[in-house]
Amino acid sequence: MMKLAVSPPILMRSLRKAFSCSAAPRWEGGVSMVQGASRGIGLEFARQLLERNEKGHVIATCRNPDGATSLLELKRKFMERLNIMQLDVTKESTIQATATSIRESYGSLNLLINASGILSVPNILQPETTLSKVEKSSLLLAYEVNAIGPILVIKHMWPLLKVGGGSRIKRKFAVVANLSARVGSIGDNGLGGWYAYRSSKAALNQLTKTISVEFARRKDPIICILLHPGTVDTDLSQPFQRNVPEGKLFTKEFSVQKLLSIIENSKSSDNGKFFAWDGQEIPW
Amino acid sequence: MMKLAVSPPILMRSLRKAFSCSAAPRWEGGVSMVQGASRGIGLEFARQLLERNEKGHVIATCRNPDGATSLLELKRKFMERLNIMQLDVTKESTIQATATSIRESYGSLNLLINASGILSVPNILQPETTLSKVEKSSLLLAYEVNAIGPILVIKHMWPLLKVGGGSRIKRKFAVVANLSARVGSIGDNGLGGWYAYRSSKAALNQLTKTISVEFARRKDPIICILLHPGTVDTDLSQPFQRNVPEGKLFTKEFSVQKLLSIIENSKSSDNGKFFAWDGQEIPW
Repeated sequence: MMKLAVSPPILMRSLRKAFSCSAAPRWEGGVSMVQGASRGIGLEFARQLLERNEKGHVIATCRNPDGATSLLELKRKFMERLNIMQLDVTKESTIQATATSIRESYGSLNLLINASGILSVPNILQPETTLSKVEKSSLLLAYEVNAIGPILVIKHMWPLLKVGGGSRIKRKFAVVANLSARVGSIGDNGLGGWYAYRSSKAALNQLTKTISVEFARRKDPIICILLHPGTVDTDLSQPFQRNVPEGKLFTKEFSVQKLLSIIENSKSSDNGKFFAWDGQEIPW
Repeated sequence: MMKLAVSPPILMRSLRKAFSCSAAPRWEGGVSMVQGASRGIGLEFARQLLERNEKGHVIATCRNPDGATSLLELKRKFMERLNIMQLDVTKESTIQATATSIRESYGSLNLLINASGILSVPNILQPETTLSKVEKSSLLLAYEVNAIGPILVIKHMWPLLKVGGGSRIKRKFAVVANLSARVGSIGDNGLGGWYAYRSSKAALNQLTKTISVEFARRKDPIICILLHPGTVDTDLSQPFQRNVPEGKLFTKEFSVQKLLSIIENSKSSDNGKFFAWDGQEIPW
């Protein structure tokens, strides 16, 4: 009778669970996920994670893998350790599907980097130079991509990060690193403008802080941090680079090297903090 | 020829402008707008503004004036000085229409209080006790009402506030006061939860700060401040009042009295600051 009461889907789930538990030791060097890895800072994170840790596995997600030429090139170099998956932060179903794939293939995560972000899109979103140009559609779009997106990714990867924690890596806990920006700081806002972007990043900071409080309260082996990469020479910053003081426009390589060192050296007391590329804390 | 070149709409606009300029002296005691005045803190702001200043005019807006029984009651008492207008912060066309009506009827504003806000709606929005209950639809709704709404109201009232400034009142400038909340503070977030609400208020803080920077840069005679009313006995807080320590649940009368005193005594150096009901600054 007991055997009959276990329907095939439940049985499958048990088998899968057993598989994922026994599978965990396979991922020596840990499993990292970089969300928004087709170009810019995200792509560079994926590259350096693969290069710096010869055993680590990386899941790189982007909206359109078929068009992600640089990421596909990286895949040819790291065929065994790089896994590309489709994920669009504005479509929760793709986040959920990625979580399911990761659970089935790896069973755990030790690091999640949310690198996707939106600042300007020709004819759709333009950083506002004045209040009179603020549009509801821009505010909503920036919020959806920059604030809601990363939070939904964390929501669905949470169980995998709990399983992963600090197992098979040097740290004692898993890390969630959300790419924020200094212009998201309210206390540091002396220039004004860029309403939609600033607001979405301040919201991301608040949501990340809120998650860090929940992880700590539950004693989950995970910390959450916010990172400001500096102004980096990427497609995102390209239209605004002429205002950057000399020596302050970083290469992707430099910025990501700095940010990875913050992640790798993070302490549990860093949970919920907001760091610039040089390790300095940024006010809220 | 010159005369013919002025088409009737342009002529009307000129007449209207001339009217509004010459009309300004009529509004001795100033013109205040309370957005979200059908109940709770907004209604109490309208009441106290009318009672404390026997010459001041008040425009009270709400989504559904016909159903705003308490506001209609107040109107019977202050027939001459209270003007009720329909405005829904989620519909920008109603904000624009209100701005047009105020321009035609008053020509200026000296005070704008954004009091509308959303925390919970049965079956639609519930303050999240955990990350696993965070929903995109809730995050978007809270952002639209609590952050975008007030900012669009300021965008459209801005020209009226510039005209009003400190004329016919004791202050030297117009004031925009946005109702925020201590739980919107990132630095003060020790409890977690309430993701959508916290995030929308942090975003409101950042947007208000950004506007304050722009007003200062343009030397407009307007300051923007953020106010935390405390936990006030209103419909909004009603479902959560059992967690409030004794003596910390304020009446509307008490809280609004404190907040109006902050507004009335504000200095230009308060521009862009976030105050609690007792005048203490709240960290971002």
